[in-house]
Amino acid sequence: MFKIDLNADIGEGFGPWRFGEDEALMQLISSANIACGYHAGDAEIMAATVTLAHRNGVGIGAHVGFPDRLGFGRRNIAFDPDSFASHIIYQIGALAGLASLHGRKVEHLNFHGALGHMIATEERLAEPTIRAVAAYDRDIIITTIPDGETMRAAKRHGIRTVGSFFADRAYGPDGKLVSRHLPGSVLEDSAVIAARVLRLVEDGTVETVDGQSLPLEATSVLVHSDTPGAARHAHAIRAAVEAAGGKIVPPGQLVE
Amino acid sequence: MFKIDLNADIGEGFGPWRFGEDEALMQLISSANIACGYHAGDAEIMAATVTLAHRNGVGIGAHVGFPDRLGFGRRNIAFDPDSFASHIIYQIGALAGLASLHGRKVEHLNFHGALGHMIATEERLAEPTIRAVAAYDRDIIITTIPDGETMRAAKRHGIRTVGSFFADRAYGPDGKLVSRHLPGSVLEDSAVIAARVLRLVEDGTVETVDGQSLPLEATSVLVHSDTPGAARHAHAIRAAVEAAGGKIVPPGQLVE
Amino acid sequence: MFKIDLNADIGEGFGPWRFGEDEALMQLISSANIACGYHAGDAEIMAATVTLAHRNGVGIGAHVGFPDRLGFGRRNIAFDPDSFASHIIYQIGALAGLASLHGRKVEHLNFHGALGHMIATEERLAEPTIRAVAAYDRDIIITTIPDGETMRAAKRHGIRTVGSFFADRAYGPDGKLVSRHLPGSVLEDSAVIAARVLRLVEDGTVETVDGQSLPLEATSVLVHSDTPGAARHAHAIRAAVEAAGGKIVPPGQLVE
Amino acid sequence: MFKIDLNADIGEGFGPWRFGEDEALMQLISSANIACGYHAGDAEIMAATVTLAHRNGVGIGAHVGFPDRLGFGRRNIAFDPDSFASHIIYQIGALAGLASLHGRKVEHLNFHGALGHMIATEERLAEPTIRAVAAYDRDIIITTIPDGETMRAAKRHGIRTVGSFFADRAYGPDGKLVSRHLPGSVLEDSAVIAARVLRLVEDGTVETVDGQSLPLEATSVLVHSDTPGAARHAHAIRAAVEAAGGKIVPPGQLVE
Repeated sequence: MFKIDLNADIGEGFGPWRFGEDEALMQLISSANIACGYHAGDAEIMAATVTLAHRNGVGIGAHVGFPDRLGFGRRNIAFDPDSFASHIIYQIGALAGLASLHGRKVEHLNFHGALGHMIATEERLAEPTIRAVAAYDRDIIITTIPDGETMRAAKRHGIRTVGSFFADRAYGPDGKLVSRHLPGSVLEDSAVIAARVLRLVEDGTVETVDGQSLPLEATSVLVHSDTPGAARHAHAIRAAVEAAGGKIVPPGQLVE
Repeated sequence: MFKIDLNADIGEGFGPWRFGEDEALMQLISSANIACGYHAGDAEIMAATVTLAHRNGVGIGAHVGFPDRLGFGRRNIAFDPDSFASHIIYQIGALAGLASLHGRKVEHLNFHGALGHMIATEERLAEPTIRAVAAYDRDIIITTIPDGETMRAAKRHGIRTVGSFFADRAYGPDGKLVSRHLPGSVLEDSAVIAARVLRLVEDGTVETVDGQSLPLEATSVLVHSDTPGAARHAHAIRAAVEAAGGKIVPPGQLVE
Repeated sequence: MFKIDLNADIGEGFGPWRFGEDEALMQLISSANIACGYHAGDAEIMAATVTLAHRNGVGIGAHVGFPDRLGFGRRNIAFDPDSFASHIIYQIGALAGLASLHGRKVEHLNFHGALGHMIATEERLAEPTIRAVAAYDRDIIITTIPDGETMRAAKRHGIRTVGSFFADRAYGPDGKLVSRHLPGSVLEDSAVIAARVLRLVEDGTVETVDGQSLPLEATSVLVHSDTPGAARHAHAIRAAVEAAGGKIVPPGQLVE
Repeated sequence: MFKIDLNADIGEGFGPWRFGEDEALMQLISSANIACGYHAGDAEIMAATVTLAHRNGVGIGAHVGFPDRLGFGRRNIAFDPDSFASHIIYQIGALAGLASLHGRKVEHLNFHGALGHMIATEERLAEPTIRAVAAYDRDIIITTIPDGETMRAAKRHGIRTVGSFFADRAYGPDGKLVSRHLPGSVLEDSAVIAARVLRLVEDGTVETVDGQSLPLEATSVLVHSDTPGAARHAHAIRAAVEAAGGKIVPPGQLVE
């Protein structure tokens, strides 16, 4: 029997605005990456999201990002990683406060959007960031792309990691996601998406946008909640995984 | 030997802006009320402030407020206390995250500006607010005005409290602070301010703006860091208290 | 032939978030109340909204509000009207800048949410606010509830006004809107909503929630864009008005 | 008789926070670069600043920046120049609204911090930005570094320009400012600063940090208001210029 984590970015609204199919997704995923008030989310949404996750037995993760609601955290910002580390702990701590109301803690962590890309790409950024996370809680699990600086830094600091796979996004031959701005970058067929997950589980590869076979060491499968049909995709993945004898579990059960 | 807490609102800058004489005050006070990013403060300032407090053996407290930097949290905002409770836990949690890097926790809590006034005035607001705080951490100490709804709610929920005295502000005969907008509302003579603290310690009263004697049950003495001469006042208070055989200690040592 | 203005609050998104059926509404309304970046809206959304209004021959109005995205401008904030006047001119000016790219100006003005309610209720707030608007542009038209302090202040300052009618909201016998938090406060049947508009045009009255007949001097009919079915309502109103021989025109054509 | 513009970045506070010696500087400068609420400034500060400028006969300029108060607009943000153009017009328009209360307009424009650096460096960013400014008001004057993409784009679009000289900053041999993070980057001796201005006027050169002579086509002299001693520097420059028979005038009088 194999195990994967099925997760989604959740709680990405702000104030009066909502984003994504959170309620439906929460019944399908094993862990939630919860926006912490910087690129999206606010304390009320976070509290409601944590409550929903807790009720559904879903893993609670902090999805930390740049302080850039206007750009949804998707614009690169030149940041000083030593200074910015405080903003990362601030976000995790805020979510931890709300999680503690349910006797829970922040169980995993991942980095949103441009922050995630920048850290995964530059050791100079990843090292002080992950060092701060390790100082905060070495038991937290980081989910991140398999072969990036974030994963390397986490391993250096003794933080457990799970490689992530973006089930609804096309991969280039270089192992990177095809830019959202290009056609075909976002997959829309739930059956195709579910089949990609099964292929990954079975032979550890992903088919790239140009038909090559890309090895990928990943057991944390992400569905973007703002992809149209996110809940449908999650449902298809869950059904396919369970039909294949697999089990969908939070990251904590993947690293035991 | 008597004991009082001498505290100040600290870390009230934001981004490039600074406010108050934080470094000087940190060497004089026993506890710090640290802005948590809503009315003032940001993660970097909070981290630096916590580090400074830790180095100086100063008690770490969360100074939570309205999300209103423009108005510095001093404007009343009509809020739903059940919803806003999440924002209070968010703020405490964020500070707790940064404090944990030094093996510390948020030891006390007080409410800033308009939020503080509104909660202390209306049971309808104080009750759900303090209930949420109790659910988060019943060991936290709340410092607040002696005879308000905040104190009553804290007592109902089994949270320890310390009454606060605004050493540099004039009191009216009704026991309320004279409005900042009125002349004479902010005291400027350090000797006078220190003498008021000693009088409070000795006979439990404050002289009101119209010369009456006002009983006040308070052992947490606040100096506003944005009052010109805040550090001078704190120095005078510390000197007077120690000359009188008293000791300046964080709130935790007042409730033991 | 009678004339009314049919308008909606438009451009109420922020950053990645959207709200309402803006594109559909723009083809049905005669004027748009455009959020100016305080309670909602941002420069990019405003620019796109102005362009859309211009293409559809729709009147351009500033919908100014409190700086409170989290609360969507719906929470009362205790504000100093003399100071806040600058924030109102800031919002109008920002929209005017974007409108000028199309050779247009801000043709009308209304006040959003809690700001609107507070100003319409207190002369102390309405007077300095409207005085500042008059100093900025006495030719702007203010749309507001018929019998409030905003309208009275506008008249004192020689600013033209048009009374507004909330077609999709229930009215109490006191002439006020029934609170959003109460059942039945938001009407959902497009035919009923259109019929209310015709009744208002024909005999100048509205049926209140308790069946009384309320006189209302209003020719500016608002459909809330965040009401489900807003475009459907607007369509029904337009059809009913045109079938009755009326014409839907921007506020400027009502005050000529 | 020669003429230069002496200007400073003004109004760089936010909410309760202040920055710089605005009142003193306003009596010494000929034009003010006024923060427009993005990297700094708010409507109240802007209104007060415009009033102060108007009273002192000082030119009113928009100092537009990134929406990044936390980083004071000094962090590079990867932005889409076509989208961001709306934010530039928003900022200018907001200031124009407040200036119009005094019968004034936004007379000049410059770009703050990281936005300024990025635009001056990349034609891809400068072109759509300046195109939008030209569409808004071709009569506005842009002050910018002499040999950058901003100046080139302005010239292409028929916008008048004035080259700027940072009187209190050290220049490298490449004509660029020495980074703020390096020692010696900020000059502190008012006499030296004033002498540099005279040298620039007399022979059109600046002495670089390594003693070379750098030709610079600039008649707009900037003093940073957050440089300690800004008012003192401005006073020294004014005295030196006037003693040498020169006149300090707003940019509009340099391009006539």
